Amino acid sequence: MTPAPGSFTAEEYATRLARAQAGMAKRNLSLLLLTIPADIAYFSGFLTRFWESPTRPWYLILPAAGQPVAVIPAIGHALMARTWVRDIRCWPAPDLADEGISLLADSLQEIAGYDGKVGVPMGHESHLRMPLDDWARLKRAAPAMSFISDDGIVSGLRMIKSRSEIAHIRTTCAIAARAFARVPEIAHAGVPLDQVFRRFQMLCLEEGADWVAYLAGAAGQGGYGDVISPADTRVLTRGDVLMLDTGLVKHGYFCDFDRNYSVAPPSDAVASAHQTLIEAAEAGFHAARPGATAADLFHAMQRVVGGRLDGGRFGHGVGLQLTEGCSLMPRDRTLLATGMVLALEPVITLPDGQIMVHEENIVIGVDRAEWLSPRAPRMIPVLEG
Amino acid sequence: MTPAPGSFTAEEYATRLARAQAGMAKRNLSLLLLTIPADIAYFSGFLTRFWESPTRPWYLILPAAGQPVAVIPAIGHALMARTWVRDIRCWPAPDLADEGISLLADSLQEIAGYDGKVGVPMGHESHLRMPLDDWARLKRAAPAMSFISDDGIVSGLRMIKSRSEIAHIRTTCAIAARAFARVPEIAHAGVPLDQVFRRFQMLCLEEGADWVAYLAGAAGQGGYGDVISPADTRVLTRGDVLMLDTGLVKHGYFCDFDRNYSVAPPSDAVASAHQTLIEAAEAGFHAARPGATAADLFHAMQRVVGGRLDGGRFGHGVGLQLTEGCSLMPRDRTLLATGMVLALEPVITLPDGQIMVHEENIVIGVDRAEWLSPRAPRMIPVLEG
Repeated sequence: MTPAPGSFTAEEYATRLARAQAGMAKRNLSLLLLTIPADIAYFSGFLTRFWESPTRPWYLILPAAGQPVAVIPAIGHALMARTWVRDIRCWPAPDLADEGISLLADSLQEIAGYDGKVGVPMGHESHLRMPLDDWARLKRAAPAMSFISDDGIVSGLRMIKSRSEIAHIRTTCAIAARAFARVPEIAHAGVPLDQVFRRFQMLCLEEGADWVAYLAGAAGQGGYGDVISPADTRVLTRGDVLMLDTGLVKHGYFCDFDRNYSVAPPSDAVASAHQTLIEAAEAGFHAARPGATAADLFHAMQRVVGGRLDGGRFGHGVGLQLTEGCSLMPRDRTLLATGMVLALEPVITLPDGQIMVHEENIVIGVDRAEWLSPRAPRMIPVLEG
Repeated sequence: MTPAPGSFTAEEYATRLARAQAGMAKRNLSLLLLTIPADIAYFSGFLTRFWESPTRPWYLILPAAGQPVAVIPAIGHALMARTWVRDIRCWPAPDLADEGISLLADSLQEIAGYDGKVGVPMGHESHLRMPLDDWARLKRAAPAMSFISDDGIVSGLRMIKSRSEIAHIRTTCAIAARAFARVPEIAHAGVPLDQVFRRFQMLCLEEGADWVAYLAGAAGQGGYGDVISPADTRVLTRGDVLMLDTGLVKHGYFCDFDRNYSVAPPSDAVASAHQTLIEAAEAGFHAARPGATAADLFHAMQRVVGGRLDGGRFGHGVGLQLTEGCSLMPRDRTLLATGMVLALEPVITLPDGQIMVHEENIVIGVDRAEWLSPRAPRMIPVLEG
């Protein structure tokens, strides 16, 4: 049977499991129970777009000792069997009477004993991908077990990337970079923004993306305001700044960086703001090394862009999710470590209240950072007016 | 300010809210608390791909009387202000010390009183999109409130589509149909499956998709086995059956249907299986009318394809999510009603154990169903060998 697409060697997964087990031993947990796509992919290699359907929950159990156990809908058996996971238990989902809960409860108790301690990701950025009714039913079906926080074991491990993960993210960044280089083919004065969005996604696919999980952007005269709205039919006009920000996926891994373009030659204010953003990202890059904190990178960039950030952040971790791990902001004291992949994302406020955002991806090496996205030029690229 | 892209009239949202409030009155709920993209979009018109980032939770409150209240990260204020929601309360997320929980607890208590009854979607297909730690914190911050199931109010409303929603889904289906018609341009013997997947997504975008949220498929000699694996580099070969199944998105609404193709002229077994699948979908279509059950449609299709379904289902609802609402399977006794949009998805098992899947989208009208996807031809289309 051919291995699951995008999956790593069994040795890599065994290492990840061993690290999770070390964390469990330290916290006296009997097992970890995982429910979201990124956590399950991280420990199994199970990668599918079928997660888009909310109907079926999926469970991966990591015991304190021994091998992982998948408790999943029957429709996923063939794909899970192509991963390194050997113990695969299925129920015929959908089952409105018992959506895998008795099988899951039995498996948890078999592995951990009736009074085992079940660690579940419960902290920042996590959620439980199963109905709350089933969560309550599970607790009733395993009444002596305790369900407690994994204390950040899973997010902590996922934050530090292996060489193979970094290679995947480097590939993803290279695909996005090739697509960004081709934006002049699709964007110029007179083109509606929603067409730019569609065409840019096509470029990402043509350059090798498996899929384009995320595309945000904006366009406005001399800057923009909102960077999370979907594209509307507003037509690009001379004097617009166009920003495209993509999180495309290759082998399950995201990049997350953006590029700004000026429709016709930029105003001095725009040209200067762009240059400042590039310098801010460089300042973040130079501050990025093992032992620095997430907050240090924020402050290094903030000193360059000036002004005051009213909430928000200047970057974050990137990996199996578009954003994950630490946030580059004053309150996040996470220590950076070799293997962390980050988005540096400084924001500048222009005199008229508009903003511009610039974003690059880096990896923390042994003693300094390395660019994963090829840096944007200091001068904002100009699209035909 | 221009309305949020893809949003409906304020009247349409007011009607949805009034229906939810009727459901709350019947169940004596003080308000509904919503956390997932589809539920929030349904009642507000807030549509963004920013959900891809797991860092920030978002909350929409529907009071038993009065207008909706959004409790959201500041980064979403500008977009939410373009919807019909007027009461927008923001916190500067990310905030590791208090991720909106005190603002949310205050808002819930202000609206419902200290001992209000908060309805939350907890049933089949739902999940809570916030960390469990924050869920516990919320209950501590509003200790006299009860947090209970919405008893299916939200999923029940979302199951019945309005004229405007049906128009959106019809548009989405038409885009996918145009892309499927162009598959002979991109798929023939010698092309690797992952390239077909990339090129097909490009066709969907070129034909007007806002994004391609879902693409599954498979290819194999005389049929296929697994329909949820991502594409690998396997090269299409004479005798393969290729299946592509897409859930693309336009204005926030999904289609979900597939097409099968034969690489070079099909074997008799494949040609006949395809014909049977078409007839099964037609049988499902003819059984589909107000008052029939989800199970009735399953049985109508099952009588045509024969064999035995070991778990799984022959279709489901479609809308703001790829799959939602009822499941076409023996145990689902949901009564079909005017305005329901369904995927009919019969599966046939071939003599050698391979399967083929066919899928179309329909809407339940006043007294009979109507096709939303243009029906596949009875004869399986042939791609160049």
